[in-house]
Order: sequence, then C-alpha cells, then structure tokens
Amino acid sequence: MDVGSTAFILAATMAVALMIPGLALFYGGMVGSRSILNMIMMVFGAVAVVGVLWTLFGFSMVFGDSYGGAGLLGNATEYLGLGDLLAGDETAALPPALVAVFQALFAVITTALIAGAVADRVRFGPWLLFAGLWAALVYFPVAHWVFAFDSADGSTLGGWIANDLAAVDFAGGTAVHINAGIGALAVVLVVGKRVGWPRQARPNNLPMVALGAGILWFGWFGFNGGSALAAGNSASVVMLTTFNATCAAILAWLLVEKLRDGHATTLGGMSGAIAGLVAITPSCGAVSPLGALAIGAVAGAICPLAIALKYRFGYDDALDVVAVHLVGGIIGTLLVGVFGTAEAPSGQDGLLYGGGLGLLGKQAVAAGSVMAYSFVVTLLIALAIQKTIGLRLPEADEVRGVDLTEHAEVAYDLEGKAHTPGAGPTPDAVIASAERLTATAAPTGG
Amino acid sequence: MDVGSTAFILAATMAVALMIPGLALFYGGMVGSRSILNMIMMVFGAVAVVGVLWTLFGFSMVFGDSYGGAGLLGNATEYLGLGDLLAGDETAALPPALVAVFQALFAVITTALIAGAVADRVRFGPWLLFAGLWAALVYFPVAHWVFAFDSADGSTLGGWIANDLAAVDFAGGTAVHINAGIGALAVVLVVGKRVGWPRQARPNNLPMVALGAGILWFGWFGFNGGSALAAGNSASVVMLTTFNATCAAILAWLLVEKLRDGHATTLGGMSGAIAGLVAITPSCGAVSPLGALAIGAVAGAICPLAIALKYRFGYDDALDVVAVHLVGGIIGTLLVGVFGTAEAPSGQDGLLYGGGLGLLGKQAVAAGSVMAYSFVVTLLIALAIQKTIGLRLPEADEVRGVDLTEHAEVAYDLEGKAHTPGAGPTPDAVIASAERLTATAAPTGG
Amino acid sequence: MDVGSTAFILAATMAVALMIPGLALFYGGMVGSRSILNMIMMVFGAVAVVGVLWTLFGFSMVFGDSYGGAGLLGNATEYLGLGDLLAGDETAALPPALVAVFQALFAVITTALIAGAVADRVRFGPWLLFAGLWAALVYFPVAHWVFAFDSADGSTLGGWIANDLAAVDFAGGTAVHINAGIGALAVVLVVGKRVGWPRQARPNNLPMVALGAGILWFGWFGFNGGSALAAGNSASVVMLTTFNATCAAILAWLLVEKLRDGHATTLGGMSGAIAGLVAITPSCGAVSPLGALAIGAVAGAICPLAIALKYRFGYDDALDVVAVHLVGGIIGTLLVGVFGTAEAPSGQDGLLYGGGLGLLGKQAVAAGSVMAYSFVVTLLIALAIQKTIGLRLPEADEVRGVDLTEHAEVAYDLEGKAHTPGAGPTPDAVIASAERLTATAAPTGG
Repeated sequence: MDVGSTAFILAATMAVALMIPGLALFYGGMVGSRSILNMIMMVFGAVAVVGVLWTLFGFSMVFGDSYGGAGLLGNATEYLGLGDLLAGDETAALPPALVAVFQALFAVITTALIAGAVADRVRFGPWLLFAGLWAALVYFPVAHWVFAFDSADGSTLGGWIANDLAAVDFAGGTAVHINAGIGALAVVLVVGKRVGWPRQARPNNLPMVALGAGILWFGWFGFNGGSALAAGNSASVVMLTTFNATCAAILAWLLVEKLRDGHATTLGGMSGAIAGLVAITPSCGAVSPLGALAIGAVAGAICPLAIALKYRFGYDDALDVVAVHLVGGIIGTLLVGVFGTAEAPSGQDGLLYGGGLGLLGKQAVAAGSVMAYSFVVTLLIALAIQKTIGLRLPEADEVRGVDLTEHAEVAYDLEGKAHTPGAGPTPDAVIASAERLTATAAPTGG
Repeated sequence: MDVGSTAFILAATMAVALMIPGLALFYGGMVGSRSILNMIMMVFGAVAVVGVLWTLFGFSMVFGDSYGGAGLLGNATEYLGLGDLLAGDETAALPPALVAVFQALFAVITTALIAGAVADRVRFGPWLLFAGLWAALVYFPVAHWVFAFDSADGSTLGGWIANDLAAVDFAGGTAVHINAGIGALAVVLVVGKRVGWPRQARPNNLPMVALGAGILWFGWFGFNGGSALAAGNSASVVMLTTFNATCAAILAWLLVEKLRDGHATTLGGMSGAIAGLVAITPSCGAVSPLGALAIGAVAGAICPLAIALKYRFGYDDALDVVAVHLVGGIIGTLLVGVFGTAEAPSGQDGLLYGGGLGLLGKQAVAAGSVMAYSFVVTLLIALAIQKTIGLRLPEADEVRGVDLTEHAEVAYDLEGKAHTPGAGPTPDAVIASAERLTATAAPTGG
Repeated sequence: MDVGSTAFILAATMAVALMIPGLALFYGGMVGSRSILNMIMMVFGAVAVVGVLWTLFGFSMVFGDSYGGAGLLGNATEYLGLGDLLAGDETAALPPALVAVFQALFAVITTALIAGAVADRVRFGPWLLFAGLWAALVYFPVAHWVFAFDSADGSTLGGWIANDLAAVDFAGGTAVHINAGIGALAVVLVVGKRVGWPRQARPNNLPMVALGAGILWFGWFGFNGGSALAAGNSASVVMLTTFNATCAAILAWLLVEKLRDGHATTLGGMSGAIAGLVAITPSCGAVSPLGALAIGAVAGAICPLAIALKYRFGYDDALDVVAVHLVGGIIGTLLVGVFGTAEAPSGQDGLLYGGGLGLLGKQAVAAGSVMAYSFVVTLLIALAIQKTIGLRLPEADEVRGVDLTEHAEVAYDLEGKAHTPGAGPTPDAVIASAERLTATAAPTGG
C-alpha cells in the first residue's frame, strides 16, 4: 500500500465532498429568490439518492468486471453493498474503500449538475426519482466506459472508451461534464420553459454565487488532482494546469462581456472560472501550463457566447448547464487533441505537437458517443416520469414559488418578520404541530 | 515517523478546523434575525477560550498519565503549556504537536455545540466563562475516559472507557455528542425558556444553514477519518461509512417530514445530514457500508421525532442539540452493539452478527456514564454562573435582540440604509469615536 | 521523492486555494451594500491576472537563479511558461510543479489583500492593471528576497533576506503581510478618501465576514503549515502555534473592545482572528505554544488600537489592511526576535531566551527593507495609473455604487423584485440582448 498516496486521496476526497455545498450555493445564488431552497435541495437530494444507489450497486456497475468483456457495463452484483471492501487490499496502492468513496462523489456531483438546468419548475419527489434513474441508467454505464481500466493482469475488464478507444479523459470531461450537460439539455426539452421565459428573476445572491464558485474551484483541485490516484508529479502538474486554466478563463469571460455588453460582471467572472475548470478537466494531465492557459482562454471566450444558443433555439436551460458543462466539456475534450503533449505526465502529442489528427478523432468519438447515449436515455427517463407521476410543477405552484409550494419554507427572513401574513406555513405550521403535541402531552408543556 | 499518515492527519486537522465556521453558520442561519451574530460569536468565542485552556492544561488533562491509574483524569501538569511537544518524537507514528492540535479541535467544537441550545438569551461574557469551565470540568475528564488509550508499554495509563470497559467509540459518540447533547439539556434547564416560547422567529437564512451543514459534512470526514490516526484502510472505510450514513439519514428525515407534515424541508434535509453524521461517529470504523446505511436511516428517522420531546417536556432547546446530538449520539453508540462487525477495521461483532448482548451492554454503560456525569456537572456549572454573575440575558435585552444588546451590531444591512433610526449604535458610535480621535489629532484628520 | 510530504503539500495547496473565496467574502461582507460585488471581483480578478503572470514569468522571477547573485531578483526567463516543470524531478522531495502552484497562491492572495484598502472607489479595469504591475514589480522581487533559498550545492542563488541577512520569516510576515499592508497604504494615499469619509455605510453582511474569517483560518493552516514543505514535526508545530495565536488574538481584541467601547463585536472577533494569523505567520515555526499565545495576544491588543491611525492621519484604509496586515505583520516579524526559541523546529533564540538583540535587529532590517521598497514602488505604480488612464472612480459613480456602475449588477435581490425601477441594467439588459438575438434567429426562439 502507498501510504502517502492514500493520504492524498483521502484529502482529495474531502475536498470533493465540499463541492456538494459549493454547487448548491453556486446554483442557489443564481436563481430567483423563490427557488433557492429547492435548488439547494435538488443538489443535496440527488447526492443522497445517488449516494445510496452507489453503495448498493453503483460502484459495482462502474468498476465490476465488464459484462461479456464488452466494455459497456460492469457486473452490478460483483461488489453489491460494498461489504467486500472492508478487508482492504494490501497489494493495491490505494484501499478499495477509498476508491469507492472518492468515485462516489463523482457520481453524486455529476447527477446534481443537471439540477441547474431545471431550476424553479420541477417537483421534488419526481426529481429524486429522476436523479436515481439517471445515475443508474446513464452515469453508471458511462462512468464504466471512461473510468474503468482493465486490470494489469487482464483478470478484470473495464470500459471501451478507457481501454479500446483509449481516448484521453483525465478526470471526466466526457463522463462528467458532457454527460451532465447533454442530460440537462434533454431534460429541459421535456419539462419545458418556465412561465414568462425568457423574462426571469435576477439572481438572488451573487456573493453566494461567488462563494459557491470559489468552493468549487477548491474542490476541483481534489477532483482533478485526485484523479491521478497518487501523490506525485502527475497530481502536481494537474493542480498547476487546473489553476492556470481557471485564471485564463476568468479573464477571457470578463473580456468577452466587456466587449459585448460594456461591463464585466461577477456572474461572468464566476461562470468563467467554472468554464475553465470544466474545460481543463479532461486535459489537466495532458497539457503544459501554457496549453492550460490556452484551453482556459478558449473556454472562457466561447462559453459566454454559447449562452445565446438557448435564446436562439428556445430551450430554457436556467443556469446554463449546457453552455458551461456541455460546451465547456466538448471544448476541453477536443482540445486535448490539439494541445496535448507527450511531455505531460498523462499526455499524448496533439495536433500542435505534431501528433496529427488521430488523437483528435478519438476524442471526438468519445465525446460523440457519450452525447448520443446520454441524450437519448435521459430523454426517455424524463419522458417516462413526466408521463406517469409528472415531473413539471403545476403552473400555479411555479408562480407562487417552488420553495414555498414544495418545501413550505422561505429562504430568508432577515428582518425578523416572523409572522408576515401570507408568507407561508412556517413557523406557524411548526408551532401548530408543536401545540397539538403539547396539548396531548405532559402538563409541563409550554 | 509515518510521513504519509502525518500528511493525512495534517489535512484532517485542517478539515476539522473548517467546522468552526461551519457550525457557526449552521447555527447562525437557524436562529431569528436578531441573534445571528451572537450565535456566531458564541461558537468562535468558545473556540478561543477552550483553545487557550487546551494549550495551558487541557491536553495534559486528557492525555497525561491517569492520576492514580484510575482512568478518571489525566495529569494536568504533565504537558503544561505544551512546550515539551516542540521536539517531536521520532519513535511515534505522528508528531505529538499534531495530535495536540487535532484533538484541540475536538475540544473546542464539542464545547461550541452547546451554544445552539441556548440561542437568543445568554450574556456573552458569562457564556465564555461557561465554555471555559465546561471544557475544564466536563470535556477534559470525559475525553480522557474515552480517547486516552494506555500506551503500548503500559508506562502511561489512559481512561476507563477506552481501556477497562473497552467500549467502541471511534470518533466521539460519547465524549463529543452525548456529552454536548446532555450538557445542552442541563444548561437550558438553568437558563429557561425564551420569551414567547414556543412561538419563535423563523430561521433567518436557510441557505446559510445548508452551507453550514455542507461544511460540517466536509469537516466530519476529517473528524472521523482522522480518528483512525493513520492513512490506510481504516480511515478509508471510515470515510465510506461516513458518506453512506449521511446519505441515508438525509433521505430518512425527509421521508418522515413528508409523511408527517406533507413537505420535505431544507431544514429537515440539513438536520438529517447532521443526525446521520452524529450517529455514525462512534461506529464509523466498526460497521459495513450497509450497516452505515442502516444506522443513518435509523438516526434520520428517530431524531426528527425526538424534536417533539422539547414541546412535550417543555424545555427550550432552541436549535435541537438534544434531539440531534444527544439522541443521535445515543443511537449511534448503541447501534455499534447491533450492527458492529468484526470484518470492519475497528469492529467487534454486534447483536446482528452473532456477538450477543455483551458489546451492546458496554456501549450502554459508556453512554450512561457520560450522560450522568456531564448532566450533573454541567447543571452545577450553569447554576453557579446563573446564581453569581448571571447567565441569562435580561428580558428587555432579549426582546430587543441579543446581537444589538450584547454586540452592538446588526447582522445585515443589505439595502445600504446606513443611518436607519433606532437601528443601534453602529456606525454612529464608530464614527463618533473616530471624530473624537480626529478632533484631538493632527490637522491632516477628517 | 517524498510521497508523504507531496501528499501534504497537495492538500495544503488546496486549503490555500480556498482562501480566495475566503478573502473575497471576508472583505465583501465588510463593505457597504453597493460595493460588495466589486470587492469580490477585485479579489478574484487580481487572482486571475497574477495567476497568469505567475505562469508566464512570475515563478521564474521568484525562484530563478538570482541575477548576478545579488539576491535582488530571480532570472525571469529561466522558467518561462513553466513547461520545464512537467517532467518532474526525482531528486527533489517535492515535484517542482507543486512548488509552483503552492507559491502561485501566495502571490495571488498577497496582491488581493490590497483590495480591502481601496474599497468602493476604484475602476475595475485599472485595478486589474494595478494588480498585474504590483505583482510584477513588487511581489515577485520581494518574494525572491524572502522565499528563494540558495540551493544546497550553491548552483542556484536565492534572495538576500533569506540567505545573506538570514532573518526568520517562516511563511511570509514580510513578503506577504508587511508587503501588502504598506502597499495598501501607498495606494490609498494616491486614490484618496471616499466621499463623506469618515462616515461610511455599515458592513452589509457580518455573517459573511465570519464565514470569510473562518475560511481564512482554515486556509492559513495550509499557508503556514505548507511552508514547512514537508509532512513532519515542523508542520505539526506550525499548525499548533497557528491555532494558539489565533485563539489568543480573538480574546485580546474582544477584551480591548469591551474595555474601550463597552461591547465585544463580531467584526472585532473576526478581525482579531486575522490579526493573530498575520502575526504568527512569520514566527509559526520559531516559537513555543506559549510564545504563540503571547504573540497572538499582543497582535490582538495592538491592531484594534492601530485602526485609530487612519482617523488620526486621515487616510482612508477602508477595511483596515494597514492596521491588520502591516501592523500585525510588523508585530509578528519583530516578536520572532523576542519569543523565538531554538527549541522550535525553525527557531533561533530571541531576546527572552537569551539570544540577545541580534535576531531582533535582523528582523527589523527585513521588515524595514520590505516596507521601504514596497511603499515607494507601489506609490509609483498607483500614481502612474492614476495620471494616465485613471484609477479612481468618478465621484458620481462612487455615489451610485461601484457594483452598479462598474459591473452592472446588484449583489442581492432577496425579495424577488425582479423589475425594481432604477435598480440597474440587469436582467433587462440581458433580456434585451437575448431578444435581439432571438429576433434575428431561428423561429424556435422564445
């Protein structure tokens, strides 16, 4: 066992875990003031559901021996319940339980990314069902394709993108960002546009967006760096390129805004950070620091322009999951084929380094395959839920605000107006139920 | 020295340190809008006081050689001032200074947990005194019982629960959560109910609660994982079970709310996460992933029902420290005796694994002993302060709001109304004192 | 290579990265409600600009071989673009790419510290220019003086403070805090006082200040601990003293406030934490835990009094960067010469330990040199920008609020008033541009 590397992956796991509130706040600050809590709960709820499924059979579907050696799906019963991981494995560099929890966070965060697209307008219970089905039918298979490498002795076979195609995807440009981004597009096509779109409430809390983005940046160092699965030069280069790309992407997005709109905004700066992080995710181990600056700059310049796609084609991707995660993921995945260099720890020479079009082609096949599979299956899942129990919130509830109608809460009561008429069921409902309790209870009651 | 494990405990220490603002915000978002800053300051203030005492003699009371070998209290002067730790110890796996700062955070956070119970109504100075006395008279002894293991060569003797009883408490179900939870009950019995209870202001900022919960989850990986004191399979399993239990507890709490109240709330989801984390704390190294799901689900289902106890018995535990930390801690401590398995790195077989009632009995003795000692001594401390300098805020100050009366501040001024009449002494007091200064100062002034 | 230490520095790098949003929120919560986003963007923008420059030539200016062996500046072209770091270096304990990204964060955060002084009143584009010039002309040289040690074989020569003077500055009391603090003083002398000073809006969000301070404390463990560049006793002692000093400083600041103003405030407690962290930064590896308590207490007591300097001398240091970072940095740097002890891992005996005045003298020379150089060069940079493109915001824009005039945004819209008249260009501008887009686009448009 490699104690030092275990220490690093333990730390990286913790860092990635902080992306849960990071994402919740990044999204939660961007929505209007009547949908904040629902957004936060869509993130945490998806995490909880997918976390349970991961434990039951998800890890096994990703890292189990590929059914028929086809590279399409891992054996769902091989590690059922994860009990076999308790004993550890002295021959492995990392304890298997650590790999299981590190990768669990990839599954839960990828699923939660989709929430940003459907802000304000989906029912909470059906959302949890969607999250569980999406993880089981989309994420677990695709993660098998990309993240499951054949074992060294060939006794366990992994996924086709990792092994047969041998595309470069260091930390999840395809399995995480393209996957979630195209899934977001599919689900918004099913649930439809919000009332009044494209006129919508402005972001309720931009400092919270900045906090969320900053936390995500922190966690992303664990996400990308930890994907090296060892403490060494590879993880170190990854941390450096992850930093480089983000800085360049922030500046590029701000510049595009300044030139296009006359102002560089906070929302733009933070979106730029995330776009840069998305784009460097597949390539972080394969490019030089200057390559990382270039990839960040390209993503930071193109993603803000890609936001216009939703207005042009009329889909309501509320928080621009498509423009940032799908477009950013495609940019990052393809640019490995351009800026990739064999000098980097996990790199191959791309177009600019004389590697020809071969790598670029593999990257395009990987991106395209994930897009096609994820889009179709996500569409079917969303349609199935919408046609049966219903995914879309009733219009009256959407207008009143999903925080109140789905969760019986309001996000803020900063002025201490505890009893504002019409402001919803709390705290009166709580007190009423408390009084029902105390009325039936001991005479010590209040 | 084990460099890799040292790296991990350094990282875990950092993660636990983030629980300080995590707890401050988790609690601070739940109170009404006139008590936010006081809640934050109760947390940070308790941390500062207990941190100083820990340095002076607290570490020594916990990890010093047990007085008379009785297992009740460590030698308070053995490591006075911690100067002896500077030299390090090449024979130990971890540098002693690292153990000291990692465990310091356990002491400060456990004490700060109590603040949630007495929200809105205690004086700040006496609270700091309470925090110091509680740490010295309750936490340091109890932590000795639970966390001080006999040295391998028998030259240093530790606490009775760790060594004589040999109950399982991996990361502090008894010393941390039961201890703080029962202490919270004792102190609210002394300070009494808030004006108007059970009618109280609604939470001022639920997104802040979610942020706090998310940060606490992150830090808890360091808290539980770091308690393995090494980077290896044990810490890895702990991270996995800590994740499992939390996911299950979130879902269980939301389900209980949905069935009971018709809505799954954000406050419920976040409380569920904390309840799951509390319950898995003692058992995280002793159960399987499925066992962790079960423990999380039980805590997530029972703790929300335990909130009704305060209405039934008429004690004002403002932020439900009793229902979450005491009840959750008892659940977790006892369920080790049910779901514990010898297959887990630090486990013994519990009831379900054919281990009989023996372990369950030990766990009950540990839980009961900490409850009895902590309750009585906390009650005496709180009474002594209340009867002398006074712990409870005057009613008029409570009604005006403790932020204003104790700290001369208001939490938010989001609209930029800098001079709202009657809104308290800031910034006018600051400006007045600045003008007094500038009037007496150089002609360059103002 | 030292895998365990690499693991720790990777984790420390992540922790320091979280100081970016930590600082943004700490500052962002303290300003009035019309300058929040600009403050956050000054922090993130400075990070992005300096991060890019670091990659291009900054690392090389700090850690390149000293020009002429003079110890004044590193060779700016030696590591141009950082491509040479990709290969790693098996003979070094840490991968060079890791040192590059860890130290990058020092550069970006130090520059961003200055933003707090010039709150509310500088133009965003010129601020980015200032940040880039300041890093290139002030930080990179000074960091070479302090952080670049001669290589063991003498083949690469470092800076004069680290090697010739041999002053003790463990993690940047001079290069980071004195440097940023005196730079802040210089730049506020150029940009001048805000309209209406000293009357200013009260802090918009004190819970956010507490969150920022808590995050900074967390990150500071990585900042100071990581400066040991290894996982071992030195880093462990540093974590302990960093904790000790902060606790003492919080209490000292609160006590000064209580005695002076009658109330202990949240702003004071959080400022105390930062003052303690600043003061322990240079000395964290050189003192005992009791010495750390003393240093924290001194900084916590003197810094709040130093705030009066701005009123006495009439400079508008909005968020007290001078009182906390310059004064705190001087205190910490000088007190190494008093409380330093050879028993500490990186200590020399100071005055109290019989070491005489020699070390104190060296510390004073280091502090004074950095102050003189940084003040003069910062003044020239700020003047050059002010006299050419202009650094100061037009008065009318300052009165309207810099968030609106520079970024076309408002920080909060918590009530969901999406169309408040006169509240600025969002979201109407966004929708208008969207409608322009959809009008010219496909018939599917909204």
